[in-house]
Amino acid sequence: MAANFNKAERLARAPGALLLRDRLASGAIDALTLVESYIARIEAREPEVGAWAWFDPDFARAQARTLDAHRRAGRPLGRLHGLPVGIKDIIDTARIPTENGCVLDAGRIPIRDAYVVSRLKKEGAIIMGKTVTTELAFMHPGKTANPHNLAHSPGGSSQGSAAAVADGMVPLAIGTQTGGSIIRPASFCGITGYKPTFGAIPRSGILSQSPSLDTVGVFASDPGGAALLAEVLFGQDEADPATHYEPVPALVKATQSKPPLAPVFAFVKPPGWEDADPDLHAAFDELIAALGDQAFEVELPGAFTGAASQRQLINFSEMAYHYYRYWRDGADQLGEETRQAIEKGNAAVARDYLSACDIPQVLNAALEEIFERCDAILCPSATGSAPKGLGSTGDPIFNGLWTLCGTPCLGLPLLIAENDLPMGVQIVGMRGNDARLLRTGQWLFDWASNLTSDDDNTTGNKS
Amino acid sequence: MAANFNKAERLARAPGALLLRDRLASGAIDALTLVESYIARIEAREPEVGAWAWFDPDFARAQARTLDAHRRAGRPLGRLHGLPVGIKDIIDTARIPTENGCVLDAGRIPIRDAYVVSRLKKEGAIIMGKTVTTELAFMHPGKTANPHNLAHSPGGSSQGSAAAVADGMVPLAIGTQTGGSIIRPASFCGITGYKPTFGAIPRSGILSQSPSLDTVGVFASDPGGAALLAEVLFGQDEADPATHYEPVPALVKATQSKPPLAPVFAFVKPPGWEDADPDLHAAFDELIAALGDQAFEVELPGAFTGAASQRQLINFSEMAYHYYRYWRDGADQLGEETRQAIEKGNAAVARDYLSACDIPQVLNAALEEIFERCDAILCPSATGSAPKGLGSTGDPIFNGLWTLCGTPCLGLPLLIAENDLPMGVQIVGMRGNDARLLRTGQWLFDWASNLTSDDDNTTGNKS
Repeated sequence: MAANFNKAERLARAPGALLLRDRLASGAIDALTLVESYIARIEAREPEVGAWAWFDPDFARAQARTLDAHRRAGRPLGRLHGLPVGIKDIIDTARIPTENGCVLDAGRIPIRDAYVVSRLKKEGAIIMGKTVTTELAFMHPGKTANPHNLAHSPGGSSQGSAAAVADGMVPLAIGTQTGGSIIRPASFCGITGYKPTFGAIPRSGILSQSPSLDTVGVFASDPGGAALLAEVLFGQDEADPATHYEPVPALVKATQSKPPLAPVFAFVKPPGWEDADPDLHAAFDELIAALGDQAFEVELPGAFTGAASQRQLINFSEMAYHYYRYWRDGADQLGEETRQAIEKGNAAVARDYLSACDIPQVLNAALEEIFERCDAILCPSATGSAPKGLGSTGDPIFNGLWTLCGTPCLGLPLLIAENDLPMGVQIVGMRGNDARLLRTGQWLFDWASNLTSDDDNTTGNKS
Repeated sequence: MAANFNKAERLARAPGALLLRDRLASGAIDALTLVESYIARIEAREPEVGAWAWFDPDFARAQARTLDAHRRAGRPLGRLHGLPVGIKDIIDTARIPTENGCVLDAGRIPIRDAYVVSRLKKEGAIIMGKTVTTELAFMHPGKTANPHNLAHSPGGSSQGSAAAVADGMVPLAIGTQTGGSIIRPASFCGITGYKPTFGAIPRSGILSQSPSLDTVGVFASDPGGAALLAEVLFGQDEADPATHYEPVPALVKATQSKPPLAPVFAFVKPPGWEDADPDLHAAFDELIAALGDQAFEVELPGAFTGAASQRQLINFSEMAYHYYRYWRDGADQLGEETRQAIEKGNAAVARDYLSACDIPQVLNAALEEIFERCDAILCPSATGSAPKGLGSTGDPIFNGLWTLCGTPCLGLPLLIAENDLPMGVQIVGMRGNDARLLRTGQWLFDWASNLTSDDDNTTGNKS
């Protein structure tokens, strides 16, 4: 069995960001050497993968040199010292183009850094460049291909960030999710994607598509890397009313600590499960069987049935308001997906919108009972492996419900489809329980790696 | 001059709640004796004033006896020990009818107390009864008359609370404001009305009309009394997302402390000023002249011009959602004002609603510059004295803009019209600056009282 588990060697291809950070901090490797290796990878692969909307190797080198000098001078190092980070191109970067994946924003250069970019700079990260986004972070694809198979989609909307990390062009990247824009591309690209609790990372300076849903998250090769980047970005900002003054959870420490008891997962088949790929069904059968007593199946409360359409109503209504200028002045230059969504939003009635906005409260109340009995909910990240062709970014149906709830989600590259493309496992925690979710995720990640190694060694007769 | 200032004896009719509290706490008066005097007042005046939706003298007496026994046993006293409080009938009281001023809610008896009611009980207040509200706290009048002249409106929507305090039926009362439902009736009834910063007092267990605007506030005979009641109600409640964990400001102490410098007021003529009563214009001319260097006129930023219609769009949209059940099942039994507002709300488009919701941020940013130069903004509470007839509750035009901004407002009974009815002066503070606003308000209240006393003594030739 376990033929559908991802191979350990695939997971291990990219060195974890935590390891890189330690080596950079100790001087075992200097930032310039490291960044040159990533630049070489980008220059070799970018023509095919198309992960970058803006990339200037000399800008990256200049930052690396400054950081190396900083370290050699014995000054205290930032928590991301020397780590190159890709930034989704809807996130404002001062004096660097930020075009939102939209022709109508061609030539747009922000004055100020987004909150998250200023956090990166303060913590010594290298701004590696801007990664491709779908048009206005919605469904109309950008140029990015799936690094595992260039004929397949990398997913969306954070497609450049996911592909760049998956291809080893950068160890870490930032994305955003309004429907399924982090967990889905992480799944298709075979990496770790982490969407924190709604409001955990300030969105100031990031394109607003739907403020009730827009969530900043991260990509890395493993949960520890995701924790490293996210912990630095968590915070409060007056300009983002979804954020609160709260102690920042010790996410990295959580990924480095053992759960007090073996974690238990509540396996759910979300709406849309029946229509998912047979490959996915088979892989989940194996996964649940392998988890044994550590997994039990639970049915999602009835209220989730309509959650997708309610989420969409919120998304489109807020999009119609926030993208009004694009639509009014350039509707004919927008992708069909974007234009249609805005027009559906234009027609939305305030009363229906307000009704939809009350749904998350109902859903979260219904989830409480499930979370009392498990460490995390477990479900697929997407309906299967990356779809063929770059004309669609795939179906976010298994993501939107959690975005609507505002629950933290971690996508892990644990499974592999018949076509040899990765498939993600998504675990979901209670709002505000990000540290516990990451600890659980690291456990699951390590468990799956050991399982596949054991499996390779023991000709697969493990129960 | 100062003929338009309210007479000191009028202000002094009701003893301040702070004084009553001290006498109750020391045992100089017992709760039963005090409550009997209010019961007697209610029984004498209620047939004419009609301030109460539910009142049971024996229920009030029973509470008073319990509180007296509590005090005699030497147990620590609540901060409102023995003080009777009137509660607007849209605020849930367990096992006591709460009919929202609406025939469709006839016989409705809540299971739980609203947050504010449980606070009152914990602090030893006497739940005196439920005060009349307009239908669903909107514009369709209830039965209450103005205690100063029964042919005139007491204002709305918190009409019973304002009239009961003004008539000496109760020293304190709770109301709510979505447009101008606290400051306007306080003005018409000649008492102090206080609408705190939006979100300061949890609304859990109170009829939701428009959650972006609905604000709980209080009525008293003076700022000290308003501070006493409000301070007890300030807090945070998970069930009301507008509330935050924040230190509760020391409101009572603020009203008992002197401003470090003589307060300065920024006098504004809000949209609608030109159409206000000539009486009001004349009274304000005198007031501003009397304040001398302590007042300067300032023009409201241009963004305020459309604020009233934007506030109305938010109000009606949210009303259409929250009152949907009333409209669907009983539109023909609703007052014309209520039905029309809901139907306007039904037609509101989500995009326009969302656009309106962003206005407060713009307005508050524009106000910052004014607040840097003054202790408070000063403007009228209403367009004149209480209108004749009980068919309308008057015009909230001078209140809605501040409700939209979420700024704290204090209405003080400083002026008097030619028809001998009171007119209020409204002072407005920066959000979160409630304590300073109350300190400034107490100063203005005392200043005006001294001015009128001096005036009476000096045959009016004071400059």
